Amino acid sequence: MSTKWVYLYSEVEEAEKHAGSWEGVRSLLGGKGANLADMSRIGVPVPPGFTVTTEACNAYSAGGHEFPEGLWDQELAALKALEEQTGKKFGDTERPLLVSCRSGAKFSMPGMMDTVLNIGLNDAVAEGMVKLTGDPRFVYDSYRRLVQMFGSVVMGVDDDLFEEVLADARDNADVKTDAELNAEQWKEVTQQFQQIFKQETEIDFPQDPVEQIKLATQAVFNSWDAKRAYDYRNAAGIPHDLGTGVNMVTMVFGNMGDNSGTGVAFTRDPSTGENILYGDYLMNAQGEDVVAGIRNTEHISKLKEDMPDVYQEFVDICNKLEGHYHEMQDMEFTIEQGKLWMLQTRDGKRTAKSAIKVAVDMANEGLISKEQAVLRVAPEQVDTLLHPQFDIEAKNTASGEGNRLTKAVNASPGAAVGMVVFDADLAKEWADEGKDVIMVRPFTRPDDVHGMLAARGILTSEGGATSHAAVVARQFGVPCVVGASDIKIDQKNRQFTASNGIVIKEGEYISVDGGTGEAFVGKIPAVTPEFGKEVDLITLLSWADEFRKLEVWTNADYPDDAKRALDFGAQGIGLTRTEHMFFEEERLPIVQQMILAKDEADREQYLNQLLPFQRSDFEGIFTAMDGLPVTIRLIDPPLHEFLEGLEEVLEAKTDRTDDEEDKLHTIHSMHESNPMMGLRGVRLSVMMPGIVKMQVGAIMQAACNVKKNGVNPKPKIMIPLVGHVNELKVIQPQLESIAKTVMEEKGVEVYYQFGTMIEIPRAALTADKVAEVAEFFSFGTNDLTQFCFGYSRDDVEGSFIPKYIEDEILPVSPFQSLDQNGVGELMKIAIAKGKSSRPDLEVGLCGEHGGDPSSVAFCHKIGQDYVSCSPFRVPIARLAAAQVALEEKGVSAKGR
Amino acid sequence: MSTKWVYLYSEVEEAEKHAGSWEGVRSLLGGKGANLADMSRIGVPVPPGFTVTTEACNAYSAGGHEFPEGLWDQELAALKALEEQTGKKFGDTERPLLVSCRSGAKFSMPGMMDTVLNIGLNDAVAEGMVKLTGDPRFVYDSYRRLVQMFGSVVMGVDDDLFEEVLADARDNADVKTDAELNAEQWKEVTQQFQQIFKQETEIDFPQDPVEQIKLATQAVFNSWDAKRAYDYRNAAGIPHDLGTGVNMVTMVFGNMGDNSGTGVAFTRDPSTGENILYGDYLMNAQGEDVVAGIRNTEHISKLKEDMPDVYQEFVDICNKLEGHYHEMQDMEFTIEQGKLWMLQTRDGKRTAKSAIKVAVDMANEGLISKEQAVLRVAPEQVDTLLHPQFDIEAKNTASGEGNRLTKAVNASPGAAVGMVVFDADLAKEWADEGKDVIMVRPFTRPDDVHGMLAARGILTSEGGATSHAAVVARQFGVPCVVGASDIKIDQKNRQFTASNGIVIKEGEYISVDGGTGEAFVGKIPAVTPEFGKEVDLITLLSWADEFRKLEVWTNADYPDDAKRALDFGAQGIGLTRTEHMFFEEERLPIVQQMILAKDEADREQYLNQLLPFQRSDFEGIFTAMDGLPVTIRLIDPPLHEFLEGLEEVLEAKTDRTDDEEDKLHTIHSMHESNPMMGLRGVRLSVMMPGIVKMQVGAIMQAACNVKKNGVNPKPKIMIPLVGHVNELKVIQPQLESIAKTVMEEKGVEVYYQFGTMIEIPRAALTADKVAEVAEFFSFGTNDLTQFCFGYSRDDVEGSFIPKYIEDEILPVSPFQSLDQNGVGELMKIAIAKGKSSRPDLEVGLCGEHGGDPSSVAFCHKIGQDYVSCSPFRVPIARLAAAQVALEEKGVSAKGR
Repeated sequence: MSTKWVYLYSEVEEAEKHAGSWEGVRSLLGGKGANLADMSRIGVPVPPGFTVTTEACNAYSAGGHEFPEGLWDQELAALKALEEQTGKKFGDTERPLLVSCRSGAKFSMPGMMDTVLNIGLNDAVAEGMVKLTGDPRFVYDSYRRLVQMFGSVVMGVDDDLFEEVLADARDNADVKTDAELNAEQWKEVTQQFQQIFKQETEIDFPQDPVEQIKLATQAVFNSWDAKRAYDYRNAAGIPHDLGTGVNMVTMVFGNMGDNSGTGVAFTRDPSTGENILYGDYLMNAQGEDVVAGIRNTEHISKLKEDMPDVYQEFVDICNKLEGHYHEMQDMEFTIEQGKLWMLQTRDGKRTAKSAIKVAVDMANEGLISKEQAVLRVAPEQVDTLLHPQFDIEAKNTASGEGNRLTKAVNASPGAAVGMVVFDADLAKEWADEGKDVIMVRPFTRPDDVHGMLAARGILTSEGGATSHAAVVARQFGVPCVVGASDIKIDQKNRQFTASNGIVIKEGEYISVDGGTGEAFVGKIPAVTPEFGKEVDLITLLSWADEFRKLEVWTNADYPDDAKRALDFGAQGIGLTRTEHMFFEEERLPIVQQMILAKDEADREQYLNQLLPFQRSDFEGIFTAMDGLPVTIRLIDPPLHEFLEGLEEVLEAKTDRTDDEEDKLHTIHSMHESNPMMGLRGVRLSVMMPGIVKMQVGAIMQAACNVKKNGVNPKPKIMIPLVGHVNELKVIQPQLESIAKTVMEEKGVEVYYQFGTMIEIPRAALTADKVAEVAEFFSFGTNDLTQFCFGYSRDDVEGSFIPKYIEDEILPVSPFQSLDQNGVGELMKIAIAKGKSSRPDLEVGLCGEHGGDPSSVAFCHKIGQDYVSCSPFRVPIARLAAAQVALEEKGVSAKGR
Repeated sequence: MSTKWVYLYSEVEEAEKHAGSWEGVRSLLGGKGANLADMSRIGVPVPPGFTVTTEACNAYSAGGHEFPEGLWDQELAALKALEEQTGKKFGDTERPLLVSCRSGAKFSMPGMMDTVLNIGLNDAVAEGMVKLTGDPRFVYDSYRRLVQMFGSVVMGVDDDLFEEVLADARDNADVKTDAELNAEQWKEVTQQFQQIFKQETEIDFPQDPVEQIKLATQAVFNSWDAKRAYDYRNAAGIPHDLGTGVNMVTMVFGNMGDNSGTGVAFTRDPSTGENILYGDYLMNAQGEDVVAGIRNTEHISKLKEDMPDVYQEFVDICNKLEGHYHEMQDMEFTIEQGKLWMLQTRDGKRTAKSAIKVAVDMANEGLISKEQAVLRVAPEQVDTLLHPQFDIEAKNTASGEGNRLTKAVNASPGAAVGMVVFDADLAKEWADEGKDVIMVRPFTRPDDVHGMLAARGILTSEGGATSHAAVVARQFGVPCVVGASDIKIDQKNRQFTASNGIVIKEGEYISVDGGTGEAFVGKIPAVTPEFGKEVDLITLLSWADEFRKLEVWTNADYPDDAKRALDFGAQGIGLTRTEHMFFEEERLPIVQQMILAKDEADREQYLNQLLPFQRSDFEGIFTAMDGLPVTIRLIDPPLHEFLEGLEEVLEAKTDRTDDEEDKLHTIHSMHESNPMMGLRGVRLSVMMPGIVKMQVGAIMQAACNVKKNGVNPKPKIMIPLVGHVNELKVIQPQLESIAKTVMEEKGVEVYYQFGTMIEIPRAALTADKVAEVAEFFSFGTNDLTQFCFGYSRDDVEGSFIPKYIEDEILPVSPFQSLDQNGVGELMKIAIAKGKSSRPDLEVGLCGEHGGDPSSVAFCHKIGQDYVSCSPFRVPIARLAAAQVALEEKGVSAKGR
């Protein structure tokens, strides 16, 4: 039997038998042809048509651009069948059959041949149609389109030649748009187009519809091999041997009188997700008219009045399609003289809000399972729902007017509007006065945090996605754009200049979009969602919680932080950074005195002053997290960070006392060539154990105190930057003895653990040894990535990383999404070795990656117990964790 | 049968049967007792004696400090046996038997009980001995010693009480030394000692020799449990359950007339290794007299004249002992009335030179195998032979006079004497004038290299063992001390001040000992060895080459360097640092212009100027290494390093032109927070490919040129700091195409390879991917260590690492000796993964560790092909590589 190259829509079963599966049909016929055939199969009215297979395309390419044997005969037979199915005939002036021709590969692919409509028209048919429709303007507009598209798309004539004719026609008629040209003028244009056609192709425009179809088929095949299609496939990683299908579909017309019409609709509201039909239509119009906006479209619900039967049929079709595809559909339809035809259906694009509501509703309606609902929402969509968003139109207007100040790194999502301030103190001051402020700085430092928290948004000209500003902003959900190197901050004159020359002075309003990395002049209206009111999201996340195995904890430094994270569903605290507490205004001077102390006795005195502060911090957090684990990281950053402000002050002084001179000398001597690899973390504790001893005392006192008040504290004390088990062997016993002493003094027993961060490659590589002492592991993937790659987080953005991403050396910044091959390998080694010596070892992660969906999935796969992320990313991580668990079980988001 | 607690020397066979092996005998009897028994067994005259076993000691401890059952009876029986063997009797006034008592554990152990001599003396025996010897002075000196040692050591009397009596006695006699006291005075002292004994112990000094022996035995046992012994064992890692033996040996006297004498001797010269007896003796003297230096000792050869028969017997014994132990021996002997007694033998300590000569000679003599000879010399001993050494006595004198300026980090071994200079240019200038100079700097930079090479030695006040100064100094074998933070350099006044206040001005002489990390005022005489003249070393290394599997390559940047390394036995170049070439005076300004070029065309121009320089460098190296691999690392350091000098100059200028202002701005913008993790290595090549393209052009042109001259070049081009295979995928093809183009242009085919350094943890973890592109691996363990630990090499010495070593968190700096558990694990992973995708992958190492013996051994064990080290460490690596191969084969250095 010779190969079957052509399938009528009515032959879809045969196609499926040949291809072996529905996926196979999509490969054989291409996505577009397969879907039309599929609708036809389930009884949805689709204009008769057929598809030339992708196999035919491949055979054509392989055979030196000749039709393979049997193809043309089969296509002719299919044309015959169309004539029979429609009762129309190609070239017939009374009942002419017209078709559209479209390419259709398995994947949607720009660069392939576009649509050619109205194939079948010729001079005679046109005249016949004028009689049939009584609308010569429509007929000649259609005909000139065929000649133009056929000429440019099929025959490769330069489209500018046709456009010049159109321009002349408009000039001659003294009108501004094509829509204003009349029938006679279109007829004239059609004739001129035919002349151009002949002149350029050296053949007459083919009057034989069958010839038109043959040429169009070839043109689609050739477009598969065209350079731009080839380049696109290379870039998108699509194999070159898929081939494209060719779809020939009977033309139907919505402009054949008042019982005709055309429209587009969604089965549900793509903006809100509500389960109501959503769309527009126009009576007696073509699809283009709906888009062109010349006439006001009607809302789909109006069709119920215009054509009640057709409306009911349409509603039934919508239900059928949702029932068939188990997904919201985006459809095109045409009504030709009272008869409804569906021209396309596909899964509808939607907003985040809609995606969530549709998924939850469909599960509640029984259309899909809860598991599928959970798989249907992209984790990043959840993120957009948790932050203020600019009104899209207002933003478009603003950016359209050249008021965009920068497009830089989108460090923390959300919309923010406020007055520009250039330092943290003023930010705090103005915010306290009730003003909305945007803090604009070259970069931020820990002692800027009070201003950052007071600000509505943050904009920096330096730093990257993991800079101090970015990390703090995400932590607290403050919209933030960083690395805006095209703005020049003039701190002295309290203003900045954008690259387009706009100058913004302190106190002037700007709007910052942390989700897109943009900033704009002036105030753009924004809306703020409330998590508690997002009932669909809350439902979806509760389902997610049923399916996930990975726990989701949070990074929180303050009780308020902890409470918010609890609302978002956090199951514990995976990281409390004790040093943020050190930077508070009241405490920083004590911290500085402590660091610069002349001897241990002197230092002790300042540590004793700090202890009550830390104790009360911890009491608050333990109380907020009653019964849940609270992981507290002992002091981590280089001490020098606490002294930067003081250093500046002292350096600026011209009349330094001897004591000040000494202090400045000490501060200078603490500078390091590579501070990231220097004296910090546990190294600090080995050199100066007083600080961590004070911290553990404060933690345990707090735990004992709250326990007396009926709270159940679960402190997990975490020692950072361990590279060698001996560091723990030196420090941990000293701290454990303090813990025991405190409990004895207080007469209270508290369950506590000592663990370590795994953030130095060596700790991962020797995790069996480390786990002999550490009772839990928490991956610090920021540092682990830094050391595994040898990339400095402090220097990333100004450096080679952007170029690496641009050149595709790196798929994405490894600080943003876990590098699973390299850093991930270290994590796997650490877990395997750690559990070899401590089988019940608890393993978590508390870096920026804890809120990145693909990183969360990886953590699940390698057997971690939890991830910890900033409060605002907790919902995202919950969803991502559920999705990976469901995918592992083989649950598919599609079908049912 | 009851346990045997006591073994006579004559019962050594029985002991060996009981213990199962000679090692077991050493455990049972302790090292001292075992060796005496062993000598006795092979017929060497040893005074009769016996050993109470370590098992008895343990039973004593376990049994509440009571003698175990049977012990005392066995000891009494052994005493009887001694009386029979010697024909003397305890307590007999005519033929008195005296013994010494010594502790003896398996390992030599300070803190254990010392010797008690002359046990068996009492008032009556003393009088008898006076008659026998006619030497009352000797007898009462001996007796008072017994009372003193017995009192202090056995009974725990405060030794100061005895010493006060001695002081009084000297005062009364109006003499300065004990040696001047006469017989009567010693007798008086003995009586006073007995009074003190009674007063402190509340018993009379025991007159019964058997009682003395019982108390002495107990005292030895008790000393095993004493706190200081316990602490020592803890510190040294010696188990507490070994116990100590108790040795009772018949006393022999070398002061019993002119046919008596005593001495110490080595079987070979411990200083030169010559195979001649080496030692001193004194006739009619005690061992103490030899040491005290009151009388001039005679060289051992003189004994041949004094007592030819005894001398011959001694020579025969020496030969027998060497034949038995297969090792040079260090012996003590006494001649008592014409009869030779050997009192001790042990392996002799020796200088490096001697160790080598003895090993080679013994192998040639057939006493040991060549394999054993290779195992007998510590690799570090080889090192000392290759560098100038100070005359030991002269150095001791110098340091004794308080002229030591510092004791800091011993960065590069060797002795150097010269005039102090404070900058590189002056160092070069003075050196060119023929002066010896020592360059003294806070630290050094690449553009100081010309001065460093001209200097005899280097002293820096900052930096550590891997600082620039240290690395360069080792590379070129220049003695160097770094991190001398106790000296204050006053660059302005051209002088420095040591912590003891000594001020050294420019031009004054100092002496630097790079092996010990010291510097001294003035000139200390030194000697310089020549490798070519060290025939024994050359022989030993040639044997080592027969046994080793690991190849030893060298790090060399210049042809002279390469030639020297070839002399030292290098089999290839594992690292040529191309950037050193950039720092040469003539080139640096071009390099700086190139870096600061405004655009690519501008840069091209300077690169074209640099190319001929680089080409001629490579021609020289290829020619020197004819037929051997030459691994050339493409540019590695941050570009900023080349600009530091220029930056200073520009900053100092007050009237900068616009161009200069621009340049300075560019230089400033290149600063990074953590340059070690910044823009360097392959990252630089991705950002600015022109430089490496020029370098590869130069390499290949050079290779083609020398090949035309009959040289066989083997370039291996090494791309540094790769972390992701995509870096290689971007850069390597560009460079390969240059290589091919050059070969086509020159019409010459050269075998070349492209490979990479494995110095980023991620490269090791993803080595399977990296090896798909890289044709060879070379571990850059300096950086790999840095990133694996997260320690900055630049900051190490001033930071926490010294404290970590002090606290034993780290056994040694990981930059000095490979961290086998952590960094080594990465290396193992890299080799396994690399070979999984490229089975014939060549793997080497080219860091500082390549010259560290234990690191070399590790490289052998994990299956590397070669290590590469600085030329001066090549011999060390050759020896270390042979030793690990032999140890793997189970060859033992001891016995034969």
